[in-house]
Amino acid sequence: MQPLRRADCEALDRADPLRHFHDRFHLPSGLIYLDGNSLGAMPKSVPARIARLLEQEWGDDLIRGWTKDGWMDLPLAVGAKIGSLIGAGEGETVVADSTSVNLFKVLGAALRLRPDRRVILSECTNFPTDLYIAQGLAAMIGGDYAVRAVERSEIEAALSPDIAVVMLTQVDYRTGRQWDVKQITALAHRAGALAVWDFSHSAGAVPLDFDGDKADFAVGCGYKYLSGGPGAPAFLTIARRHLQQTEMPITGWLGHAEPFAFEPGFRAAEGVGRARVGTPPILSLAALEVGVDLVREATVPALRAKSVQQTELFATLTAQELDGFGFALASPAAADQRGSQVSLRHERGWPITQALIAANVIGDFRAPDIVRFGFAPLYVRYVDVWDAVATLKRIMVERQWEQPQFSAAPTGVT
Amino acid sequence: MQPLRRADCEALDRADPLRHFHDRFHLPSGLIYLDGNSLGAMPKSVPARIARLLEQEWGDDLIRGWTKDGWMDLPLAVGAKIGSLIGAGEGETVVADSTSVNLFKVLGAALRLRPDRRVILSECTNFPTDLYIAQGLAAMIGGDYAVRAVERSEIEAALSPDIAVVMLTQVDYRTGRQWDVKQITALAHRAGALAVWDFSHSAGAVPLDFDGDKADFAVGCGYKYLSGGPGAPAFLTIARRHLQQTEMPITGWLGHAEPFAFEPGFRAAEGVGRARVGTPPILSLAALEVGVDLVREATVPALRAKSVQQTELFATLTAQELDGFGFALASPAAADQRGSQVSLRHERGWPITQALIAANVIGDFRAPDIVRFGFAPLYVRYVDVWDAVATLKRIMVERQWEQPQFSAAPTGVT
Repeated sequence: MQPLRRADCEALDRADPLRHFHDRFHLPSGLIYLDGNSLGAMPKSVPARIARLLEQEWGDDLIRGWTKDGWMDLPLAVGAKIGSLIGAGEGETVVADSTSVNLFKVLGAALRLRPDRRVILSECTNFPTDLYIAQGLAAMIGGDYAVRAVERSEIEAALSPDIAVVMLTQVDYRTGRQWDVKQITALAHRAGALAVWDFSHSAGAVPLDFDGDKADFAVGCGYKYLSGGPGAPAFLTIARRHLQQTEMPITGWLGHAEPFAFEPGFRAAEGVGRARVGTPPILSLAALEVGVDLVREATVPALRAKSVQQTELFATLTAQELDGFGFALASPAAADQRGSQVSLRHERGWPITQALIAANVIGDFRAPDIVRFGFAPLYVRYVDVWDAVATLKRIMVERQWEQPQFSAAPTGVT
Repeated sequence: MQPLRRADCEALDRADPLRHFHDRFHLPSGLIYLDGNSLGAMPKSVPARIARLLEQEWGDDLIRGWTKDGWMDLPLAVGAKIGSLIGAGEGETVVADSTSVNLFKVLGAALRLRPDRRVILSECTNFPTDLYIAQGLAAMIGGDYAVRAVERSEIEAALSPDIAVVMLTQVDYRTGRQWDVKQITALAHRAGALAVWDFSHSAGAVPLDFDGDKADFAVGCGYKYLSGGPGAPAFLTIARRHLQQTEMPITGWLGHAEPFAFEPGFRAAEGVGRARVGTPPILSLAALEVGVDLVREATVPALRAKSVQQTELFATLTAQELDGFGFALASPAAADQRGSQVSLRHERGWPITQALIAANVIGDFRAPDIVRFGFAPLYVRYVDVWDAVATLKRIMVERQWEQPQFSAAPTGVT
C-alpha cells in the first residue's frame, strides 16, 4: 500500500461534508488543537451572543430578563437540545450545576430507588471525580453504604445482589474506550441494579441512545465536544419511567413545583425540572447553547463518521510515521470501540506533550504515560491530523522533548 | 418639620461620596431600579472584560487558559475578595456552585461536626430554598435527622440539646430584618450547636464580621448586591478553626488535594479549596469579579452609611407622601435592624407592583402582600428614592393599579 501523504489529507478535507464548520470556530492561526475533548474551541458567534445578553438583557432588562428574555426557560430548553444528541426523549434532560454535582444528585436518587441495596459499583479507572462523588455520598449517608471499584474486566462478575447502582463513564477519559451502554445496562437491570452513565466524553461526538438502551440516569459535561466554554454548566438526564418516583437529594427552590409560591415545604416539579437546584448561571448557559446548536446542526451521525475517519487516519499515520520511537496505542484498535480520541502510551509522554504544545500542537497528558489526542470533528481538519503527526515525528527525530524546559512537573485540566 | 422636597434629594446626591459609582453601571435611562437586592445592575466594564475573556482567553488560549489566564485560581481569588467584604479571614472563602448547593455542602459538613445531634433548626419564614435544602439533606441521610422550623421569636427557646446546627438568613428576604450574627451564634454555641449563616441579602450591603462574630459557616449569593450577573456563582465560607476537620458531603475533583494526580480516592485540599466540587463556570465567575471589585472599591462602611440614609429617606417620604393609601411598613422602623431594603405591606401589593413596573419603577412583590424596594447604594441615587415615591403616589392617587392588565397572577425572581 502506498504511504499516505499530506495531499491525501487535503483531499479528505475537500470531500468533508462538515468542512464549513471549521470556519465557524475561533481557532488561532498556526495552532493545531487536539484537546477539544478537554475544552472545546469557541464558536465565533459566542461573543456577539454574549454581548447582546450583557447589554440588552442583563443591562437593559435587568430582573425582567428572567421572563422577557427567557432566562428561566434556558435550563430545560438547552437540556432538551442536549437530550436530542444523546437519544433522550423530550422532557428527560435539564442543564444544571456541574457534572460532579449532577452525579451526586442522580446517584442519591438512584440509591433511593433501590432502598434494600447499599453498593455503588464502578470501575477503578473511572474518571476520579466520579469515584470521589460516590465515595462522598456513601460516607454522608453512612451505615453500610459503600463504593466498590473493580477492574473494567470484572464489572459483569461484580454485579452481585447488593449492587444498587452501576456507575460508568461511557468513553474512558484516558484510553477513549467505549462501554456498550445497552449491554451493561441490561446486565445491571438483570442483576436488579440501576445504570448511571457519565456521558462527559461522549456527548456531541458519539452516537448515544439513552432511551433505546434503557439507561436509567445520565450526566455529562458541557465544555468538551459541546463547546460550551470553560466550566460550562452540565446536563442531567432521567429516564421517563423514573421521573415521578425520582427524589433528588439536593432539593433547591428551582426544582420546586412552584418556586415563586415560596412554600415552606419542598414539592418536586413534575418532570426533569425537579433536578434543578439554584439559580442557573445565565452567561455560561447562553454560551453553551451556541455550541450545542452547532453540534445539532452538524448532526451526531455525520460527526461520528468524520471522527472515525480522523481517528483511523491518526492511527494509520502514527504507525506509518512513528515506528520505532517507542509509542504504543493506548486506545482500542477497532474504531467502533473508541470515542473521538486516540491515546498513545510513551514512557516520556509528559515532556513529549510539552514539546508538542511548544510546537503549537495541543494535545494533553494523563499520568502515568498517556498522550491524548482528541479529534473534535466539528473543527478539526484532516490536514491537522497530518500536521500533528508530522510535528510529533520531528520532535522525536530531533529529540526536542529532551530540552530541560519540557520536564517540569505535570499539570493539566481534563 | 418642613416636608422634604425633590431638591433636598438632589442636594443629598451632590454630597454623596459614592455618587460617581452610579455612572459605572449600565442603567437604562428613565428607569428607577430598586431591585438590586434581587438582581444587581451590570457594571459597565463587564462587557469589555467578558469580550476579552472570550476572544483572548477562551478563543486564543483554549485549554491553556486554566493556567495562563489564571482561571483555575479564580474561585479562591474571588472568594478572598468576597471574604474581605463579610469579615472573613484569608483562606476562609471560595466561590463555587449556587447558594443552594453550597448550603447543602456546609449543612452536611456541620452535621458531621456534631455527630450526636440530629436536628437543623431554622425559622419557618427563612428563604424557602434554605428550608428545602435542609429538608432534602435530612431525608437523604435518613434515620432521625430532621429540620425544625420555628417562628423567629422562638429560635432562642428552641435551642435544645438535639440541635446540631442553627441555619438562618442574616437579612430576611421579605422584611429586610437583620439577625444579630454575634448574638445568635453565641447562643448556638452555648447550646452546643453550630451556626450556619446565609448572607445572600447581606453581602455587599451590610457590615458583617464573620470572624469576629465567631460564625461557623456561611454561604451567599453573587448576583444581588455583588452585581455578579444573572445566576452568578455563589460563595461559601468556613471558619478557620473548622477547616481541617470539615468533611464536605459533595467531594469533587477540584476539592481534592491534587486534582491532577487523578488518584482513585478523595483526599481533601488543605484549606477552603476543599469546598470546590466541579469545574468552575469561568464566564460567570469573571463577571462576578467585576461587581465584587466595585463593592470593594466603594467599601462596605461607606455603602452601609448611604444605604441607611436611603432607607430612612424612603421611610420618611412614604410617611409624608403616602399617608392614607393603606401602606404599612413591613421592615423594622429602626435602620440598624434592617438591611438595604424597605418593604411595605399593602393588600393590593401585586397590582401596585405591576403598575409601578409599568411606570418604570422596578421593585418586586413577595406573597401575600409585600412590596419590596431594594436600595443598592452603589448605583441608586437619592432622587431615585424621591421619584419612586412620587410615582407610587401618582399610581395611588390615580388608582392606576386597578387597570386590568396589572392583576394577572404573580410571578417573579428573588
